[in-house]
Amino acid sequence: MRQATMIFPILFTFFLLLSSSNAAVQDFCVADLAAPEGPAGFSCKKPASVKVNDFVFSGLGIAGNTSNIIKAAVTPAFAAQFPGVNGLGISIARLDLAVGGVVPFHTHPGASEVLVVVEGTICAGFVASDNAPYLQTLEKGDIMVSPQGLLHFQVNGGKASALAFASFGSASPGLQILDFALFKNDLATELIAQTTFLDAAQIKKLKGVLGGTN
Amino acid sequence: MRQATMIFPILFTFFLLLSSSNAAVQDFCVADLAAPEGPAGFSCKKPASVKVNDFVFSGLGIAGNTSNIIKAAVTPAFAAQFPGVNGLGISIARLDLAVGGVVPFHTHPGASEVLVVVEGTICAGFVASDNAPYLQTLEKGDIMVSPQGLLHFQVNGGKASALAFASFGSASPGLQILDFALFKNDLATELIAQTTFLDAAQIKKLKGVLGGTN
Amino acid sequence: MRQATMIFPILFTFFLLLSSSNAAVQDFCVADLAAPEGPAGFSCKKPASVKVNDFVFSGLGIAGNTSNIIKAAVTPAFAAQFPGVNGLGISIARLDLAVGGVVPFHTHPGASEVLVVVEGTICAGFVASDNAPYLQTLEKGDIMVSPQGLLHFQVNGGKASALAFASFGSASPGLQILDFALFKNDLATELIAQTTFLDAAQIKKLKGVLGGTN
Amino acid sequence: MRQATMIFPILFTFFLLLSSSNAAVQDFCVADLAAPEGPAGFSCKKPASVKVNDFVFSGLGIAGNTSNIIKAAVTPAFAAQFPGVNGLGISIARLDLAVGGVVPFHTHPGASEVLVVVEGTICAGFVASDNAPYLQTLEKGDIMVSPQGLLHFQVNGGKASALAFASFGSASPGLQILDFALFKNDLATELIAQTTFLDAAQIKKLKGVLGGTN
Amino acid sequence: MRQATMIFPILFTFFLLLSSSNAAVQDFCVADLAAPEGPAGFSCKKPASVKVNDFVFSGLGIAGNTSNIIKAAVTPAFAAQFPGVNGLGISIARLDLAVGGVVPFHTHPGASEVLVVVEGTICAGFVASDNAPYLQTLEKGDIMVSPQGLLHFQVNGGKASALAFASFGSASPGLQILDFALFKNDLATELIAQTTFLDAAQIKKLKGVLGGTN
Amino acid sequence: MRQATMIFPILFTFFLLLSSSNAAVQDFCVADLAAPEGPAGFSCKKPASVKVNDFVFSGLGIAGNTSNIIKAAVTPAFAAQFPGVNGLGISIARLDLAVGGVVPFHTHPGASEVLVVVEGTICAGFVASDNAPYLQTLEKGDIMVSPQGLLHFQVNGGKASALAFASFGSASPGLQILDFALFKNDLATELIAQTTFLDAAQIKKLKGVLGGTN
Repeated sequence: MRQATMIFPILFTFFLLLSSSNAAVQDFCVADLAAPEGPAGFSCKKPASVKVNDFVFSGLGIAGNTSNIIKAAVTPAFAAQFPGVNGLGISIARLDLAVGGVVPFHTHPGASEVLVVVEGTICAGFVASDNAPYLQTLEKGDIMVSPQGLLHFQVNGGKASALAFASFGSASPGLQILDFALFKNDLATELIAQTTFLDAAQIKKLKGVLGGTN
Repeated sequence: MRQATMIFPILFTFFLLLSSSNAAVQDFCVADLAAPEGPAGFSCKKPASVKVNDFVFSGLGIAGNTSNIIKAAVTPAFAAQFPGVNGLGISIARLDLAVGGVVPFHTHPGASEVLVVVEGTICAGFVASDNAPYLQTLEKGDIMVSPQGLLHFQVNGGKASALAFASFGSASPGLQILDFALFKNDLATELIAQTTFLDAAQIKKLKGVLGGTN
Repeated sequence: MRQATMIFPILFTFFLLLSSSNAAVQDFCVADLAAPEGPAGFSCKKPASVKVNDFVFSGLGIAGNTSNIIKAAVTPAFAAQFPGVNGLGISIARLDLAVGGVVPFHTHPGASEVLVVVEGTICAGFVASDNAPYLQTLEKGDIMVSPQGLLHFQVNGGKASALAFASFGSASPGLQILDFALFKNDLATELIAQTTFLDAAQIKKLKGVLGGTN
Repeated sequence: MRQATMIFPILFTFFLLLSSSNAAVQDFCVADLAAPEGPAGFSCKKPASVKVNDFVFSGLGIAGNTSNIIKAAVTPAFAAQFPGVNGLGISIARLDLAVGGVVPFHTHPGASEVLVVVEGTICAGFVASDNAPYLQTLEKGDIMVSPQGLLHFQVNGGKASALAFASFGSASPGLQILDFALFKNDLATELIAQTTFLDAAQIKKLKGVLGGTN
Repeated sequence: MRQATMIFPILFTFFLLLSSSNAAVQDFCVADLAAPEGPAGFSCKKPASVKVNDFVFSGLGIAGNTSNIIKAAVTPAFAAQFPGVNGLGISIARLDLAVGGVVPFHTHPGASEVLVVVEGTICAGFVASDNAPYLQTLEKGDIMVSPQGLLHFQVNGGKASALAFASFGSASPGLQILDFALFKNDLATELIAQTTFLDAAQIKKLKGVLGGTN
Repeated sequence: MRQATMIFPILFTFFLLLSSSNAAVQDFCVADLAAPEGPAGFSCKKPASVKVNDFVFSGLGIAGNTSNIIKAAVTPAFAAQFPGVNGLGISIARLDLAVGGVVPFHTHPGASEVLVVVEGTICAGFVASDNAPYLQTLEKGDIMVSPQGLLHFQVNGGKASALAFASFGSASPGLQILDFALFKNDLATELIAQTTFLDAAQIKKLKGVLGGTN
């Protein structure tokens, strides 16, 4: 230990030299949700105010409420909910599906997704650009990947509730739910009919269900 | 000119030194459609076989055939049609819309799009992830951008045929047409109903139109 | 419709659950030109203040003024002019060339370019790193790609004025015009001579034309 | 249905026009492990031979064998094991930790990681470049992110076995285990001592445990 | 010269047309260290305040102080020290190694490194993920590359002091020094022992040397 | 040591479990110059045939021959010369400048450059898109950055020969030498005059020097 004591002052010099480089290190960029956002993500919190809690998120430990028409719930931990992933190219969401639950057709414009089934049985599928469907019934522990931007869905095909986690290769993968995009806004029924070939009656019915107008 | 003759042998040495670096230059990577493809695009043609025609494409000079139900035609110049753009992060397509023509709701999973109207009037729109629609009637020379992966459409809202070019920030932006993805394959009607909330009768009708089964 | 009314409150719950994820979606990042800029582009406007006009630009509908020595005009719709493309990896510019018009040798340091000829005839060309020129006379509807960073030019080789659009795989492709870079500043004539092999008289003549000094 | 039959031939034309663009779509790039690999990942399987099984992996449904000195097992589903994620910027691994199990200090040179605890309790931690440790005891459902390239570890701090999934923002995140890198090869003991400040006896002891030589 | 005078006013018009595009050019993004930082780097200084000194750094012209226990000094010119490289994907550092000097095992989480030896002889090495070491004694003018995120070191193996420059493919490559990450903080000795297999005595000894606690 | 012997078989199991993940690690991608090239770089050599020499390059240890008209030599270590940097986003070149030596105006279309002066004095400069020149006389140890794609040059402004290293943020940064691009090929003199405003006599003179025709 004597030696240690002796060399400590010298090593400290070494540390000083290097510490300026450490200041340059951008190991992470915890989102400061109040600061300006840029194309690459949210601004970073000042290093001095970063805490371990910024890298930990407990919101996925709680089951989502599936008492709704789709008997399903999606709980995201994207950069807006989980600031620690900002700029790191990764995020995650929890999926709860009661018996008969459905996450309807949707896309993530900004990332591919890997789904891992933790409880129950889920029928998952995506449709490729050549319109070929890729469907699979996933048991506990199975994983399936849905490529970026393609329409996909999840259905609880089993007799018990199902739990899964969906990982994304972006901190802000986005989420566009097909039915909501078409029917949960004020797009004119006629325009939707023209651009989807759906019957006006069908469109009006779903607008009624989802709260759309026009 | 005498001087030039004198210094030529010396400069040639300079050229020789630098020419090895030129061999390293990957100015472009013209697609060799027959070679293995990778995540970043097609393999490159051997430099010696690259010709100016690889960088030029005349296919967009010809109007697409709009004698179809949507009265519209899309002619792409993506890397698969136009090998010169491979790896360069850019591509383009020609849109022809007869009076009443429609390019129905679709997405490009791999790129954002800028549409420029060259003839006629086009009503273009996209829907954001929060379900807000962004619609605009575009006159000749107007441009509109549709962000990557979001549902969008084009409709000829005028009294004459319309022509537009759509540029993409990828050599292979992809194209998923909503109706085709849902109705032009063998996805079970019941599964589509479950994941879109559409009525079975509506689904079967469109499957009939588009050639889908089940 | 009764059914719809019945299930509406339940679906609303579903919407609430998902709406937090929607807040995380970065579909787009409309440039806030007054806020700090970063390496990936301009800061984003607050989502609440984004309007459809941010995604539409009408400036390219107007012919540029070609009453100048090069008989040509370039009208850009880059992120600084067209904030909607910020962060989306795409932008566009309008080229007007009167008879005999020329866009002289230039580079775009940040993106490759696809040129589409809409009216007239344009002789376009680029020079590769191995000094090989790639030239083509483009008719209406023809397209040509110029790889990122390489010297290229456009000349109206026809008997009528020409119109083209140039698309770029970046929202801020940049533009360095060779003659301006060399002769439209205060670089010493001697230094330019040394680094270009041009004669001093030639340099001084072009400095005179373009407003350079020294 | 009659109407459908009538318009079918016309729509087919539309499909033909678009199908060439579909050929250009690179929705995914399932790894062909036998073909040449490039910097962006493995070569793609021919589209015609892609099957749904390429996007599904069942290997994570089986508990890893924790009958080893660290009482832990890591089962990866990276591109080399799960070809469907190739080029999609995402992958996943299963972690099994028996009571007292440890995944020792390691880095992933190519990606950040999000850990989600599915069973049991895990103490996870990483050390930042400024040497600050970030430690947290994670319960079921908790998640924690470890930024790219930083040293991190997982320890089962509970009284039951633990199960977790680690997601990565790359199809090939890499894995460098500190002890293996230092002691499980033929690096000379003296050189390790010089570059780690560890005592030679300590180095030789761990070389013995891990099978290193010299 | 007359001709020049004549055409000047016309060319000026050309310049005006193009100058708006020049405003859009993001040639560089000199770091404004006081403004918010984002995932892609520091905010940019206002163009008007950029000066040539932003692109030049003289700090590497001075030898680092090697009067310390490792007989070595690292002087970085990363974005935090050299604002001109911000956003440009490149940075550099100076390495001084006295006789017997050592830069101990470390990683750069954010970039690969090319080392060029300018004076003396350096033994450099990295360890790959499969634990294979790659070692080489480098003479003046030799270069060696260490791939991103892998453990590597440099040792002055010669009889004179050595000087090298390390280039990085990132403006903020980061630097995690193994010994500092393990021993220069308050990580509990027991936890380090558990996650490194090192003996507690060894850990305590190095904590003593480096200033760690617990 | 007994303990070590005892636990070795168990740890070996641990190693086996992890070794499959190691196979997935793409630490590096040493260029196989004979295999197909893609947009992201050269194909990778098979891991089994990678050797330390792939990561080391001695070609920069030898002074380039400056007995030429520019009294300068550039020796690149790009991916084509130094396969170890392939895919790693970094490369380097050696610059030798005799007294009065000049590296004339050139661009690197694919990367920014950091120049470090090792011997002598170099006047370096680049021109930004707004035509502003940034010039600096660099002494030994000084560094200067030239942003991607911008015209820049180096001149030996001192009384002794100069040596520098240029680092690039790409394994294949490219190199377009202005004079060679304009005058060392068969571009018609008239076309060059039209697109550069240079006089035909000047063009013909330089074509004569550099070996251009037409």
